[in-house]
Amino acid sequence: MASASPASGEDSLIARYFRPIATDPGAFDLGDDAAVLKADGCEIVVTTDAIVEGVHFLGSDPPDTVGRKALRVNLSDLAAKGAAPAGFVLTLALRKVDDAWLKSFAHALGEDAACFNCPLLGGDTVSTPGPLMISITAFGRVPVGKMVHRSGAKPGDRVMVTGTIGDAALGLAILRGGNVADAAVADAAVRNLLIGRYRVPQPRNMLASAVRDHASAAMDVSDGLAGDLAKLCAASGVSAVIDLESIPLSAAASDLVSRRIVGIETLIAGGDDYEVLCTVPDDRVEAFAEAARRAGGQATSIGMVVAGASAPKFIDGQGAELALERLSYSHF
Amino acid sequence: MASASPASGEDSLIARYFRPIATDPGAFDLGDDAAVLKADGCEIVVTTDAIVEGVHFLGSDPPDTVGRKALRVNLSDLAAKGAAPAGFVLTLALRKVDDAWLKSFAHALGEDAACFNCPLLGGDTVSTPGPLMISITAFGRVPVGKMVHRSGAKPGDRVMVTGTIGDAALGLAILRGGNVADAAVADAAVRNLLIGRYRVPQPRNMLASAVRDHASAAMDVSDGLAGDLAKLCAASGVSAVIDLESIPLSAAASDLVSRRIVGIETLIAGGDDYEVLCTVPDDRVEAFAEAARRAGGQATSIGMVVAGASAPKFIDGQGAELALERLSYSHF
Repeated sequence: MASASPASGEDSLIARYFRPIATDPGAFDLGDDAAVLKADGCEIVVTTDAIVEGVHFLGSDPPDTVGRKALRVNLSDLAAKGAAPAGFVLTLALRKVDDAWLKSFAHALGEDAACFNCPLLGGDTVSTPGPLMISITAFGRVPVGKMVHRSGAKPGDRVMVTGTIGDAALGLAILRGGNVADAAVADAAVRNLLIGRYRVPQPRNMLASAVRDHASAAMDVSDGLAGDLAKLCAASGVSAVIDLESIPLSAAASDLVSRRIVGIETLIAGGDDYEVLCTVPDDRVEAFAEAARRAGGQATSIGMVVAGASAPKFIDGQGAELALERLSYSHF
Repeated sequence: MASASPASGEDSLIARYFRPIATDPGAFDLGDDAAVLKADGCEIVVTTDAIVEGVHFLGSDPPDTVGRKALRVNLSDLAAKGAAPAGFVLTLALRKVDDAWLKSFAHALGEDAACFNCPLLGGDTVSTPGPLMISITAFGRVPVGKMVHRSGAKPGDRVMVTGTIGDAALGLAILRGGNVADAAVADAAVRNLLIGRYRVPQPRNMLASAVRDHASAAMDVSDGLAGDLAKLCAASGVSAVIDLESIPLSAAASDLVSRRIVGIETLIAGGDDYEVLCTVPDDRVEAFAEAARRAGGQATSIGMVVAGASAPKFIDGQGAELALERLSYSHF
């Protein structure tokens, strides 16, 4: 991303909307061909996630929520890897220059960049005849060798998850209508809370150092708890047994489950939670939960890592295993 | 980018095509949520460039050339900044999984990653109803504080450019038909050479250390020499006077200009050259040119940096200034 006179449309767009939020000295006011990221003696953790209109967000979603979501899905990866945010670059593919949309998008993105201490370093803006797409590559810093992997889970470790699971899937269901539509969630405040969880994830970056200090393996829940846990187990060469009744649900989600409007499988196979899923050695569970609390979050034990190569089992209150038709979202 | 059983379509795609080329230990076999990039005491230079079907490449371009171009446009930025390639992440937005296309694309990308010592570290694969889009964020290493900026040009410096200018614009013109179509370039080998310059840029990474040692300012020529020089001058607060007859042209381009099939303005306002444009203090010009030769390249002096804020002037053999209708490509 670079901007300089003679101003083209692209340069002018960058100067108007993105230069004001690129406050890090390594961004060179977006006036060069590249940015500089200082390692400060750490290793750089790199993650990249794109969101596409109609796939990861809806064309009707407000632009400020789209900006926040684009960055936060990447921040969530950094949190799960135990890394402190260090900055990001942005690729924006636009059909046209919609000033009102861009102004709101960039302003919200800048607010989140400041709030999460993750400055905009550069980017690229291209035209496309297709849907709006935002691709972000985010950087974090960890002490050398300390990134938390998917692959460290050991039999006997507890399976833990932050926050609550399934709210974003319910928010998306409300936006799409159907059986979780307005009639089932009569309270507008509750509807908005669930929709907000879909549109604006709450990445758990405050818990990153607790994850780094205590977790044997971690990843964020983006495609659904069931599928993501299966991936973590496969990467670690283990299996897991999950107690469905231990999975932390919001009051709104609990209410919908108890009224049988949705089943628990909808919540654990839905996506967009952006919570941290991790495994913690048994003797560190209390310390991890306490560190999470001190950081303003919550971490709940939902089951146990076991030896084996089978898919994780989800056990209900009667001791029966839940049959899952699909584990999570896949693009293809 | 992460791949693990239970294999979804997306995971399987990554395992088949991209895991084999992700050989760097920091990529963790694409089996985690993030990669690790070691700084090795350097600063990390970050650049990002996306290419969109129908905008930056043609739907009819062979997939291996698309893979090479996607990486090379980023490698070119690293070269111009004086940075040694360190790795890249890839975001791929696909309409569908076309195995033959992906196999060829990934194989060529892997060859280039090995050849340029720039390993694949991670990425994201998403579905889109729109055109194919490839967004790459590439990383380089420079000694602390040594990235070459756009902004260091001083009056009296020479303006220098590597390789030859305008071939890619001619290649695109041939692919599009029109006045530079087959009839004007009768020799198929010459046509293929020009088309190859459009489809597969030759980034000047071998010259990166020469640029870092000698240039006062640099950028790569991606949107057209005239426009990119104007940007470099604006960033440096200077102007420039360019001798049109000094601009290095290939034999094919010289021939088309001398036959008046294209004007020089087509060559200097066209894009996709991916040569390094830099300014070099007068007393270092010989050393820079010699270092470029030793590295297997060529660097040609095309003019002089002068004081002032006006757009660079392009002077022909009769001492007249060339009037340019447009300086370079802009997306909006």
